[in-house]
Amino acid sequence: MPRPEILETFPNPYAGRDYEIRMQCPEFTSLCPLGGVESDAEELAQLQGGAPDFATMHINYVPGEKCVELKSLKLYLWSFRNDGIFYERAVNRILDDLVAVVEPRWMEVVGDFNIRGGIKSVITAHVGARTDG
Amino acid sequence: MPRPEILETFPNPYAGRDYEIRMQCPEFTSLCPLGGVESDAEELAQLQGGAPDFATMHINYVPGEKCVELKSLKLYLWSFRNDGIFYERAVNRILDDLVAVVEPRWMEVVGDFNIRGGIKSVITAHVGARTDG
Amino acid sequence: MPRPEILETFPNPYAGRDYEIRMQCPEFTSLCPLGGVESDAEELAQLQGGAPDFATMHINYVPGEKCVELKSLKLYLWSFRNDGIFYERAVNRILDDLVAVVEPRWMEVVGDFNIRGGIKSVITAHVGARTDG
Amino acid sequence: MPRPEILETFPNPYAGRDYEIRMQCPEFTSLCPLGGVESDAEELAQLQGGAPDFATMHINYVPGEKCVELKSLKLYLWSFRNDGIFYERAVNRILDDLVAVVEPRWMEVVGDFNIRGGIKSVITAHVGARTDG
Amino acid sequence: MPRPEILETFPNPYAGRDYEIRMQCPEFTSLCPLGGVESDAEELAQLQGGAPDFATMHINYVPGEKCVELKSLKLYLWSFRNDGIFYERAVNRILDDLVAVVEPRWMEVVGDFNIRGGIKSVITAHVGARTDG
Amino acid sequence: MPRPEILETFPNPYAGRDYEIRMQCPEFTSLCPLGGVESDAEELAQLQGGAPDFATMHINYVPGEKCVELKSLKLYLWSFRNDGIFYERAVNRILDDLVAVVEPRWMEVVGDFNIRGGIKSVITAHVGARTDG
Amino acid sequence: MPRPEILETFPNPYAGRDYEIRMQCPEFTSLCPLGGVESDAEELAQLQGGAPDFATMHINYVPGEKCVELKSLKLYLWSFRNDGIFYERAVNRILDDLVAVVEPRWMEVVGDFNIRGGIKSVITAHVGARTDG
Amino acid sequence: MPRPEILETFPNPYAGRDYEIRMQCPEFTSLCPLGGVESDAEELAQLQGGAPDFATMHINYVPGEKCVELKSLKLYLWSFRNDGIFYERAVNRILDDLVAVVEPRWMEVVGDFNIRGGIKSVITAHVGARTDG
Amino acid sequence: MPRPEILETFPNPYAGRDYEIRMQCPEFTSLCPLGGVESDAEELAQLQGGAPDFATMHINYVPGEKCVELKSLKLYLWSFRNDGIFYERAVNRILDDLVAVVEPRWMEVVGDFNIRGGIKSVITAHVGARTDG
Amino acid sequence: MPRPEILETFPNPYAGRDYEIRMQCPEFTSLCPLGGVESDAEELAQLQGGAPDFATMHINYVPGEKCVELKSLKLYLWSFRNDGIFYERAVNRILDDLVAVVEPRWMEVVGDFNIRGGIKSVITAHVGARTDG
Repeated sequence: MPRPEILETFPNPYAGRDYEIRMQCPEFTSLCPLGGVESDAEELAQLQGGAPDFATMHINYVPGEKCVELKSLKLYLWSFRNDGIFYERAVNRILDDLVAVVEPRWMEVVGDFNIRGGIKSVITAHVGARTDG
Repeated sequence: MPRPEILETFPNPYAGRDYEIRMQCPEFTSLCPLGGVESDAEELAQLQGGAPDFATMHINYVPGEKCVELKSLKLYLWSFRNDGIFYERAVNRILDDLVAVVEPRWMEVVGDFNIRGGIKSVITAHVGARTDG
Repeated sequence: MPRPEILETFPNPYAGRDYEIRMQCPEFTSLCPLGGVESDAEELAQLQGGAPDFATMHINYVPGEKCVELKSLKLYLWSFRNDGIFYERAVNRILDDLVAVVEPRWMEVVGDFNIRGGIKSVITAHVGARTDG
Repeated sequence: MPRPEILETFPNPYAGRDYEIRMQCPEFTSLCPLGGVESDAEELAQLQGGAPDFATMHINYVPGEKCVELKSLKLYLWSFRNDGIFYERAVNRILDDLVAVVEPRWMEVVGDFNIRGGIKSVITAHVGARTDG
Repeated sequence: MPRPEILETFPNPYAGRDYEIRMQCPEFTSLCPLGGVESDAEELAQLQGGAPDFATMHINYVPGEKCVELKSLKLYLWSFRNDGIFYERAVNRILDDLVAVVEPRWMEVVGDFNIRGGIKSVITAHVGARTDG
Repeated sequence: MPRPEILETFPNPYAGRDYEIRMQCPEFTSLCPLGGVESDAEELAQLQGGAPDFATMHINYVPGEKCVELKSLKLYLWSFRNDGIFYERAVNRILDDLVAVVEPRWMEVVGDFNIRGGIKSVITAHVGARTDG
Repeated sequence: MPRPEILETFPNPYAGRDYEIRMQCPEFTSLCPLGGVESDAEELAQLQGGAPDFATMHINYVPGEKCVELKSLKLYLWSFRNDGIFYERAVNRILDDLVAVVEPRWMEVVGDFNIRGGIKSVITAHVGARTDG
Repeated sequence: MPRPEILETFPNPYAGRDYEIRMQCPEFTSLCPLGGVESDAEELAQLQGGAPDFATMHINYVPGEKCVELKSLKLYLWSFRNDGIFYERAVNRILDDLVAVVEPRWMEVVGDFNIRGGIKSVITAHVGARTDG
Repeated sequence: MPRPEILETFPNPYAGRDYEIRMQCPEFTSLCPLGGVESDAEELAQLQGGAPDFATMHINYVPGEKCVELKSLKLYLWSFRNDGIFYERAVNRILDDLVAVVEPRWMEVVGDFNIRGGIKSVITAHVGARTDG
Repeated sequence: MPRPEILETFPNPYAGRDYEIRMQCPEFTSLCPLGGVESDAEELAQLQGGAPDFATMHINYVPGEKCVELKSLKLYLWSFRNDGIFYERAVNRILDDLVAVVEPRWMEVVGDFNIRGGIKSVITAHVGARTDG
């Protein structure tokens, strides 16, 4: 289950300047949801369902007063590991969780998912407008 | 024969936010049409015509109230497999079929076809205007 | 159904010299077999089974008295398009069919199949020994 | 000698929609012109002049009422094979010939020529303005 | 916990010929072991230990009487997902499990692990000798 | 400790024209800061902390009256080698130091840091507006 | 028509040492033969046959007393431009012509032909044995 | 010493149309200047100074009434070979020399210099404004 | 100063089988030695000497009874950070230090150093003979 | 004129072990010889002959008692800058000069020359036999 309470921040050391931070997390993994029921590791092997999904998750933002602490971001992303969640929900959920904690001037989350059934998916969502152009 | 009736949707979980979904389908195949007559697998080998075409089909959209269900999209694209159809028609037909079912805010279909006669073709069509910039 | 009777040859113009011919066919497609029953295009869309497979097929050989005619090879490979066949069988079947018609000094077939269920497969089989070192 | 009379068109199947067609022809070849005189294959070997040029020719357009027929385009491009012509003239000539026959809403021709004398050249010309953005 | 009992085989359709099967599984994931104690998903987030490992697992073999069934292989590899295991042990364990079930003439397992602490590791182990040269 | 006093400039030889200089420094290294205390080389091996960070540092600018002297820039970047500093601070500090000395019309610093804990970071900051478009 | 009489040599400046020369000629072009009749540029456009072939031709050798002069090699390869010739014949013909003139200790010709009908071909032939290993 | 008097032009064959010519010259070399004194080949080896610089020089322009002749451009660029000149000066000097002779509607020169002291430099300067968008 | 006493090992979990471990460490850095005197960080900036070197260090081995512990290897490689050492000595020293502690059946160290003075260097040394072929 | 007297060596610090050093010099340049007469920079621009050649020069060796000093190697390679010399002679000359000074157990020189007249050349020569396998 995603655990946004893990996320930590530190004060932006250059809050007076609009600048951009881009993070690329190539080791995101979650489970494909099984008809609404919650899947766990036990069911995984037995039911041959809840197949693992893999993605590179890009998190880009212009910080306001706070920056996200890298280690806590890593742990937060790990907390999706055994969670059943759709692509669209995962990307928007991560955006919402991060915006709530980091309060950035602009933030974008891009989920670049591995091919499934011969189809590759990339989902992009953002909050706020760029003003650092 | 293309079967748009296969296409299914699910409710957009974040319909209040403009975000983008990009899907890449590298295994699209259809047949080159034979002078208007409909080709099938039997004729294929005998007439030495109706040669197979191969493409990567890109489908990008900003969802409105609905998202296209991935498995149904895969089956819909498979339904072109033994259909004789021109490049320009295939791309625009897929765009029309998807727009009718998914009712997106913006949708773009890009057909990136394999080289034929020493010429590579890429066809791009879209419906709607981007508002999520 | 594979149609080896389509294959044609022409006399090797330099039969006195051991030399190598390598052909790469990136547009091979067949169907995944459905429990022994034969799949066709109709079932394809309805049963959501008999999913298409895609491969690059490599055919490498040292010709003896005959060379395979390219256009007939293309048509022979097309004849797998609506056939349900396992990876291992497809590669060995193509090798057997070609060896019977071309009678090469050495021949190798490599099937490099697209990823399925997160797993990519490459099957390599050969007949004869290299003597052109 | 370039033969624009070879070019054929077919009616745009989706003329009501602005969409883009991009064609890439990596096998364009012509001859370097020899001081105004016309070079042919005989002179080629004897005079050690009229050296072959090679290019990838990109032809991109938004069709109006007509689309260019692919096979006729291929033959038209082949007709430059033994013609002595400068880079700048070839690109603009192809653009003019195609615009006259296809009457597109927008068309661009890009000639990407192989390195000569340690210098690589890319020439880009277009007619009309994009309205499908 | 790795579950070799999931692995299934089917009869090698060309058992009379030595040929090679190479499978590439880019979505292998397990956990880094925590001092001998067994880690589970709960501990994962709380203890900030048992960090996920990611690898591409290559499984190459010359089949004897049996081939490994692809879907069962996928499920077997999934069963490492929440298991704490060292790199060296994972690669050799997979080799042992597969050799016991598939009884190949030759088999090689290569684990290509993602960078950790600025160091990338690739472990290669095999059983048997190549005779299909 | 960063030593901006090392930075030297030379008069811009074409100060009347807006033009752009882009420099790419793939060998930037510093230390991860240890809880505020200053780390040095001695502590590095003993405390097993203050781990090295590596980045490619991009410095792009439109010069005013002065250009930065390349050798002095190299030495200035070397002076971070045994300094404990956060990513965000390093990028903005370099920008501030260079702007103070070079007084450019526009300057941008991009720090492209190596993967840490499975996450890659790129930080971009700039001062001034482009007028050479 | 291929003109081997164009080929020139110069004395190998280090004939006492076995060393290797590898030449790569990415601009080889000839015509596909039309049923034995000889095609020329006129027929090319009218008959829609004798389609151009393109290849990268690799010529590798260990010189004996002579080296091939580069400019004459270029002109010799140009002399195939309007010649109708099969792949297998072109590669072996070039090998024979060069061996007759250059008398190398070992020579290999590799013709890497562009894709035709969805199939790419590479032909390799050699004369002599390597002794410089 | 740069010799702009070598530069020749020919009349733009399509002067009525704004189109773009891009040339890439990967073999530009000059010498690093030695404190104002002029370096020559003799000093080069003896003083261990005046080290060679290497760059790919990009020259992009929209021609007016004239196009630059390729062979003369090659010779002009060669004339920097034994000249001691700074990066910034070389790029702007080439731009000035070419603009004076070619009188283009727009011209841009990009010098992409090899890494020196661990730093790579790219200098971009232009004259005029694009009107062919 | 290199600190081999940091290196730790753990018992090879599959000591009965010859298998290979390949580790790639892209973040090795040391200093160029200054005429025999020992350089430190202070001198670095002041003397403009003792320039940093960067390399990817490859360590490949067939373990005997022991495997090298990854974290201790990382710390050992870090201990070269402020050490002045020649390329040839660094590679052979690392090989000697690791062989003494790990006692492998075969070990190879490859130092792939960044370009200096326009020259790139790769040094390869090994101990023992491969028996796991 | 090549100046082998510039070459310096230092004692091999690990002379008791066979190990390999590979150096890659991507910035080698010389002049194409003009019919035996010696070309200099003056003639270069005037005669439009003696065109510059560019190569990446690979120098690989197993040292005996001596290693080549890198800076002296760089200066030695620079000394070809204004020398007119054929490809075959340059590679073998460099090999001879280095073998005379360094007295290696094995040495190989590979000259990878830029494309000229549409043909790329790679020349490889060596002295001695590998014994470090």
